[in-house]
Amino acid sequence: MKKHRIIFQPSGRRGEVADGTNLLDAARNLGVDIESICGGKGTCGKCKVRVEEGYFEKDSMDSRMAHLSPLTDTERKFLKPADGPSMRLACACHVKGDAKIFVPEKSRAGKQIVRKAAKELVISIDPAVKKYFVELAKPSLHEPITGDLERLGAALEKQYGLKGLSMDFTVLKTLQDAIRKGSWSITVSVWKGREIIKAEPGFVESAYGLAVDVGTTTVVGYLTDLATGKVINTESMMNPQVPYGEDVMSRITYAMMNPDGVEKMQKAIIDGLNEIIANVTKDLNSNGSGDGGQQIVDLTIVFNTAMHHIFLGFNPEHIGRSPFIPAVQNELDIKARDLGIRINPGSYIYVLPIEAGFVGADNVGVLIAEEPYNQDERVLIIDIGTNGELLLGNKDKVCSTSCATGPAFEGAQIKMGMRAAPGAIEKVRINPETREPLYKIIGKEDWHTADWNIQKEKLGAKGICGSGIIDAIAEMFKAGIIDKSGKFDMNVNGPRIRRDHDGKPEYVLAWANETSIGTDVTITQSDVRALQLAKAALYAGAKLMMQKMGIEKLDKVILAGAFGSYIDKEAAMTLGMFPDCQIDNVYAVGNAAGDGARMALINLSKRREANERARWVEFVEIAVEPRFEKEFTYAMHLPHMKDGFPHLKALLEKGKAPSAAAIKG
Amino acid sequence: MKKHRIIFQPSGRRGEVADGTNLLDAARNLGVDIESICGGKGTCGKCKVRVEEGYFEKDSMDSRMAHLSPLTDTERKFLKPADGPSMRLACACHVKGDAKIFVPEKSRAGKQIVRKAAKELVISIDPAVKKYFVELAKPSLHEPITGDLERLGAALEKQYGLKGLSMDFTVLKTLQDAIRKGSWSITVSVWKGREIIKAEPGFVESAYGLAVDVGTTTVVGYLTDLATGKVINTESMMNPQVPYGEDVMSRITYAMMNPDGVEKMQKAIIDGLNEIIANVTKDLNSNGSGDGGQQIVDLTIVFNTAMHHIFLGFNPEHIGRSPFIPAVQNELDIKARDLGIRINPGSYIYVLPIEAGFVGADNVGVLIAEEPYNQDERVLIIDIGTNGELLLGNKDKVCSTSCATGPAFEGAQIKMGMRAAPGAIEKVRINPETREPLYKIIGKEDWHTADWNIQKEKLGAKGICGSGIIDAIAEMFKAGIIDKSGKFDMNVNGPRIRRDHDGKPEYVLAWANETSIGTDVTITQSDVRALQLAKAALYAGAKLMMQKMGIEKLDKVILAGAFGSYIDKEAAMTLGMFPDCQIDNVYAVGNAAGDGARMALINLSKRREANERARWVEFVEIAVEPRFEKEFTYAMHLPHMKDGFPHLKALLEKGKAPSAAAIKG
Repeated sequence: MKKHRIIFQPSGRRGEVADGTNLLDAARNLGVDIESICGGKGTCGKCKVRVEEGYFEKDSMDSRMAHLSPLTDTERKFLKPADGPSMRLACACHVKGDAKIFVPEKSRAGKQIVRKAAKELVISIDPAVKKYFVELAKPSLHEPITGDLERLGAALEKQYGLKGLSMDFTVLKTLQDAIRKGSWSITVSVWKGREIIKAEPGFVESAYGLAVDVGTTTVVGYLTDLATGKVINTESMMNPQVPYGEDVMSRITYAMMNPDGVEKMQKAIIDGLNEIIANVTKDLNSNGSGDGGQQIVDLTIVFNTAMHHIFLGFNPEHIGRSPFIPAVQNELDIKARDLGIRINPGSYIYVLPIEAGFVGADNVGVLIAEEPYNQDERVLIIDIGTNGELLLGNKDKVCSTSCATGPAFEGAQIKMGMRAAPGAIEKVRINPETREPLYKIIGKEDWHTADWNIQKEKLGAKGICGSGIIDAIAEMFKAGIIDKSGKFDMNVNGPRIRRDHDGKPEYVLAWANETSIGTDVTITQSDVRALQLAKAALYAGAKLMMQKMGIEKLDKVILAGAFGSYIDKEAAMTLGMFPDCQIDNVYAVGNAAGDGARMALINLSKRREANERARWVEFVEIAVEPRFEKEFTYAMHLPHMKDGFPHLKALLEKGKAPSAAAIKG
Repeated sequence: MKKHRIIFQPSGRRGEVADGTNLLDAARNLGVDIESICGGKGTCGKCKVRVEEGYFEKDSMDSRMAHLSPLTDTERKFLKPADGPSMRLACACHVKGDAKIFVPEKSRAGKQIVRKAAKELVISIDPAVKKYFVELAKPSLHEPITGDLERLGAALEKQYGLKGLSMDFTVLKTLQDAIRKGSWSITVSVWKGREIIKAEPGFVESAYGLAVDVGTTTVVGYLTDLATGKVINTESMMNPQVPYGEDVMSRITYAMMNPDGVEKMQKAIIDGLNEIIANVTKDLNSNGSGDGGQQIVDLTIVFNTAMHHIFLGFNPEHIGRSPFIPAVQNELDIKARDLGIRINPGSYIYVLPIEAGFVGADNVGVLIAEEPYNQDERVLIIDIGTNGELLLGNKDKVCSTSCATGPAFEGAQIKMGMRAAPGAIEKVRINPETREPLYKIIGKEDWHTADWNIQKEKLGAKGICGSGIIDAIAEMFKAGIIDKSGKFDMNVNGPRIRRDHDGKPEYVLAWANETSIGTDVTITQSDVRALQLAKAALYAGAKLMMQKMGIEKLDKVILAGAFGSYIDKEAAMTLGMFPDCQIDNVYAVGNAAGDGARMALINLSKRREANERARWVEFVEIAVEPRFEKEFTYAMHLPHMKDGFPHLKALLEKGKAPSAAAIKG
């Protein structure tokens, strides 16, 4: 029977399907969630997907469409021009050739869980933008003529001691009406005590800001009350640049290969941010001075250097090639309207400074959130996103570097890998005697046990997310399924250790009947290799920095990033993701980059700190170190015991994995 | 025979024409110049005119068109959508009802003469925007990574001592390419020593600025070399807002009556300014960094308060009604791109401050150009445009006011009045014995004498411009044709003193056979009245200010504005346009408002001076003075001798008017 290759984006899930397979079924077979309320009957119109560019490089869009069955009347009914080009309903078309399909966020069933939730910050409130209410004396013919702005300026000086304020031009256009609408009383928003960026009639108390973290994969916005510093709403989405490249390097390449590449990707992320702004402000009541986004008077933003450049419309080419020179390193204040960001148009976007090369504003966010420069202890901070960034040091010196970990930690390049969404296996324990696993999936409270009847459950396993992969491979190592080199030990008995149809070893974590996708969920030899490469990059980076700084022992390890918050720190240490450290001194801090953006939003001195410390931190380019290759090879081992791991050894001896019985109880 | 009323704009010429009159003929009969190369044969398509809104308030555009004969095929051939709505060819249509016709600038024969030419200024060169050339060291992997902007900043500090410069966001987007295109050498334009507003590859010496004077009627731009301060090109046009109202108050009214009135008028003037920018920079050679307007790195602008507000998109309503409050008085720096002005997008538009009410940035231009605050002598400065503005004082104190002179000085509301264009009578002498006139028209060197044979000349008289009206009425007074009250003395004999068909007295300045329009050019009783009202407003304003300041005698009178440069100062004094003064101490200084804009362009300290002195000058609202009415009535006399005019008396006794013989010689 004829077969076709098919790839789903952004998950990267791929496989072969029989000619004529329904596209929705193909997606489900590969563990790709596509929304379908009607169950594939063609009546809900939810399963919209896009036939992707890039895969059929020599084909025209027309011939690309021919790899699927022709467009049906049902599809014509549901597909709107606003959906964009090359859209299909997955349930209404059949695979007739190789195809690359992009599943838009709206069509994804089980939206990605926001693993970038905001934690409470302990910081004094002193935002860059503050509101001031003033009552003005009504002008009369019997006094010298004074302009509205000059009258306002005099009142602000008299009542608040604010001198020599300028006013944004867009605000000046609204000033006359605002003053008269408020019967000569007005509330102004003042930026850094020097520029009036908004004028509202009468008394307005509420002031909102937005802290934004643009990750390579995920964008999240924290709507913040500037008076209290509290996050009042959070909104996230897949980075709309993902269709142009899954990682930083592929987006830089896209920018270099396409004359309008930067422009397209910039538009995608600005449009996406505007969507976040519209959604996150939905519940703000109108106060007469414009709804939603118009009520946001300040915005801070972090991203890695490539995302930074593309967001601002800079050519990212030069940061992608030696000597890796960015357009600008320092902080930037840019008028929202100059970027087309739909908040109060007089407001500034505060772009945190970047460190160097790939160590971007996001890592400066981590830096000012965790403040290693204020600590006596030698701390290693690992921020794992699509890239890995490291900070090492204490009050005397802090070094930074970035590691090309690849996307394995996020579930990409892993056969059954998936993002953190309902159905993803997120925790794993393997009985070292029987090699039988226990696992927990996102969306269910309890662990999977022997008496779990998938027939009765609405949700079974669909794949493995990053934390599940770390867990599974650490447990496989402890159970002797793989050895120190990561190789499967095929002498180990049991039905779960087997070879796939290519003869490659794999371990079955869940049988087909325990899943929602009807196929076994397995960990393969190449999954193990992908994870080893990723963790070795992190480890070798940390090791070389320690050597450079003469640090032999870490006092503290901080795991930042969404991923860092969800992995089992003992499993991560078992795998050797970072050098040895007392396990109680390993902390997960969540989205520290986002925390930094939030701090810069609610405390102005944090901006100064960011700019000063970004220059103070010493960037170390580890890829050019002659020793890197050697350290990287050592670090491939599970775990990398060569360096002596007193804490890890103690941990492994204690045998801390819970037994099936313990979990059931 | 049926007659129809017809008005031509922007000249305001009006009259009655017989039913069926060809529109081009009607225009010529009323002294309105419309371009027609083919002589009305319908083959050149030059005589495009617009059927105006506003006149037929209750009519639809369709019924308005019915006041003219139906559209012909010839017209359909020549009229393009780009010409705008309601256009006709004047030669191809006939008057069938009352009509208001606008003659666009392009269709006007004999373009208005630029009477706002730039004079040489004596001022040191220290512009707000300066260019700096720097050579940067090429980055290498063996040094810490430095961003392009930071590398540039360090070089600017080292070579020029410029510290802590910011960079406009639009420039930042071009920086990487500019640096690499110039092989690590670059020329930057720095605004006020603090912001980089342009980056050009390699070495670029030339730096251009534009000084703009937006008059109610005329807009002029002076392209200036910022290194030398020299004007290298001048471009002017009719203010494109004229169709919305001939004077300030009618435009304010238009803004109040139409929801999009401000927006429309703002667009008109911005589009007009962009046209001036495109034309004035036509000859600049490309230097690789963008042509024409892109090479202008600084722009200064003056206008009266209403034009200021409309230009910036502010509602002018509040400056049009008591207590006459402007949105802002102080100077403004506004990014060119925020206004849609097509110069270098990172550049600022410098808007000079305004004084109060109707005393605008143009009068501040006059103030800093003439510097009464640096003088011991008590000087009266009269700036006569469509409005009249007065400054009075010396180093101790300067007061300002504005007078509603109306447009009589510019030839509007005068029966045969016209703008200063070829064919306009600009100088007049009347023989007190014979009451025979001599006159000089624009476009011819010699005076009209008795042996002038109009048949041999290409150009005859077409009407009278402002300076000609002043001359004519002063001479009529001296020849006894009108008395002190301005009334015609019908006892005076001669064929030129007669009554028109309504029985109103008039004086024939030129017989129909001396003209290009085939009708007599006359000065009517109501022309004399219009001029009396205008000059009385100026005089009363000056007189009240003198009283307020306790000044009995003027040391100096300065006539500013295009009009002030062309009138005969003795004639003006004869009419009593300003209080008595030694005639040798009466000076015409040309377009002083424009001079002020030019000074602010080439010397930064002039901007500080403008802002300080605009606040220092005391605005006097003369219309609210109880004595104004009385002074105004006195001042209607020709001349106003009540105050005692020693200098004027001496002048009149000397009988300085040239004899016909003297002129002929």
